[in-house]
Amino acid sequence: MRGKGGPGLCGSASAPGASQTQAVRTRQNSSFKPKTTGGCPACKKGQAVNRSSTRDSLKTIGEFGLIRQVQRQWPTSSPRIITGIGDDAAVLKTPPGRQLLISTDVLIEDVHFDLNYQTPKDLGWRAGVANLSDIAAMGGTPLYLLVSMALPVRVPPQHVRELYRGIQAACHPFNVELIGGDTSSSPSQIFLSLTIMGSVRMNRALTRNHAEIGDHIYVTGTLGDSNAGLRILQTYSANRRRFRPSAIETFLVRRHLQPAPRVHVGQLLADRKLAHAAIDLSDGLSSDVRHVCQESRVGAEIRATALPLSSQLRAFAQRDKRDPVEIALQGGEDYELLFTAPAKRHQNVLHVSEQTKVPITCIGEIKPKTFGQQLVLPSGRKQKLSSESFCHFNSR
Amino acid sequence: MRGKGGPGLCGSASAPGASQTQAVRTRQNSSFKPKTTGGCPACKKGQAVNRSSTRDSLKTIGEFGLIRQVQRQWPTSSPRIITGIGDDAAVLKTPPGRQLLISTDVLIEDVHFDLNYQTPKDLGWRAGVANLSDIAAMGGTPLYLLVSMALPVRVPPQHVRELYRGIQAACHPFNVELIGGDTSSSPSQIFLSLTIMGSVRMNRALTRNHAEIGDHIYVTGTLGDSNAGLRILQTYSANRRRFRPSAIETFLVRRHLQPAPRVHVGQLLADRKLAHAAIDLSDGLSSDVRHVCQESRVGAEIRATALPLSSQLRAFAQRDKRDPVEIALQGGEDYELLFTAPAKRHQNVLHVSEQTKVPITCIGEIKPKTFGQQLVLPSGRKQKLSSESFCHFNSR
Repeated sequence: MRGKGGPGLCGSASAPGASQTQAVRTRQNSSFKPKTTGGCPACKKGQAVNRSSTRDSLKTIGEFGLIRQVQRQWPTSSPRIITGIGDDAAVLKTPPGRQLLISTDVLIEDVHFDLNYQTPKDLGWRAGVANLSDIAAMGGTPLYLLVSMALPVRVPPQHVRELYRGIQAACHPFNVELIGGDTSSSPSQIFLSLTIMGSVRMNRALTRNHAEIGDHIYVTGTLGDSNAGLRILQTYSANRRRFRPSAIETFLVRRHLQPAPRVHVGQLLADRKLAHAAIDLSDGLSSDVRHVCQESRVGAEIRATALPLSSQLRAFAQRDKRDPVEIALQGGEDYELLFTAPAKRHQNVLHVSEQTKVPITCIGEIKPKTFGQQLVLPSGRKQKLSSESFCHFNSR
Repeated sequence: MRGKGGPGLCGSASAPGASQTQAVRTRQNSSFKPKTTGGCPACKKGQAVNRSSTRDSLKTIGEFGLIRQVQRQWPTSSPRIITGIGDDAAVLKTPPGRQLLISTDVLIEDVHFDLNYQTPKDLGWRAGVANLSDIAAMGGTPLYLLVSMALPVRVPPQHVRELYRGIQAACHPFNVELIGGDTSSSPSQIFLSLTIMGSVRMNRALTRNHAEIGDHIYVTGTLGDSNAGLRILQTYSANRRRFRPSAIETFLVRRHLQPAPRVHVGQLLADRKLAHAAIDLSDGLSSDVRHVCQESRVGAEIRATALPLSSQLRAFAQRDKRDPVEIALQGGEDYELLFTAPAKRHQNVLHVSEQTKVPITCIGEIKPKTFGQQLVLPSGRKQKLSSESFCHFNSR
């Protein structure tokens, strides 16, 4: 780790107070490159930003004060990392006998999150879990994270610390190391971009395209809780009501704000060659079943009565006169895993559930492509499994 | 490559026309995961977006139309890539006997770039080069790129195509493969986030922290041209003058908009163990010398008369009554390499220059830390090498 506790560090060559047009030349083109102090008084001070008060602003702390803060908050020491934060690129040992995984996400304020009804730490947790979940869905081991952000000066440094704390808390159980990132100012929204690297046993990655006809379709955990939790938060926010949740609401909101990444389940499925295909449930069950079917060129039958629904979701749905199955099918951001496995592996799958203490439920079966994707209703009647996909550029 | 030419692909579970607050649940958490068609008519069509006219909008093309466009424009076929675009994560073979490099950058509209005076293709080129340059500065071989972007709907799809074309053009000579990314809408600015991966021979990475006292300090190319080019563009833009550049202006503007990444120089320096330390000149010579000194705990003497200045920069400086040395010292975004090498390797360094046809100039010497960083003026007088560092959060 470089620059830690060192003298003030600041960015590129144009003068502080440079206009917006001048600022065009200030790109910081590396992974948290600490840079020497120039005109920025805050960066010059080398102050103990970790202990800075909540009254500090990004202006007083400075860009590289922020980086120092992150380095102190999340130090790295793994022998896998030859060079971490602070050079033009991170240098990493390759994991012997394994393949690499890499995935990236952007999260934009007012598109993906709203700090009116989630704390920066919750946002960080969810951002971390979304990335971990991508590695989990491949059956991999998460290893390294790069966190880039562009921040308007209105954001208090305390929020940035909390954001990192949330990411770190999500990553901590898996010993994921922070190896880089980039920071910038932003004229308006907060922009986050996370890139996660992981590894997986040679040729064991769980892709979406190997589901086979006759496979059981499984999901971890319960479905729809996250979506219900989001709706609860949105209702409170829209009505400007003070947040005094019931026990049911607390459970559902927590499921939305603090999802659990199913890393161990994914690893066991891959290591034991149990699953043919896997995906993480970020878009909603219907959409994600469709992704697997499309990639594997198969169909699927999902049994409504088999869907794992929490008692809290059922109670919420009853109160709001909504169909809990519909919420489970369409609600996104569950960050549970969906996977397919041959029927003869059913006992092995249940064993993974016991070992990881994560509920795993068989919800249907892979069918020939011509079957399409069908939902078996409680009455036994079948209907097309429809998904209301969201297109970013048609959202408003 | 997945999803190529397939049926329409769209994002996550909430309905098209969802409000901004609803859109909070629509994060697309993977590397260009193609998703099945839902409500977005544009995504349903599976239309030949590659041939779509300039009158198309992001709304008509849709999020996954964009992804298809990118996949067609930049297909991948390398056997190193087990799974590319289209799953929860990319799966990659690890390069045997080598270490991994990874670096990431964010570029924000109105902070890092202004499309009033550069084309989307130029922006793409510069974004690509900035990333390639980070790998070059480590002595590495660039391999894979992930490109994420958040786009306001006002951006014409043609601009997005051109942006990718620019990135691709910069990466093409190095066979860099596009393996993932993420797309989103943005409420205001364009937001770009690029992550580059590369590899380097075991323990040969050129870091910033191994410069030794007595080392020669070298730079590639000429310095300050990019900054002069930027100033020319800004002047034209500020005065709303039609861009009718002289030959000198054309050269300098081109040096700003189309910098050359010094990948081969970096590779030869690392492979032949010639350099002790290296950095790419993104912040400006003064700042970047300081970074190396700080990381290596040494001082440096830079000779003003030795700085490689183009005749065009000298002419520009004379016309504007500015000191070309000052522009070379403070101007950023040269994307040249600065490295230090033992004096006895001088002939080997010159040989690298001959082989790569890239000018390499010795501009000074590494000194003890107590020496500080000094500039020897043409008169022989020495002065402190000062850098006007830029702090993102103090820029306005």
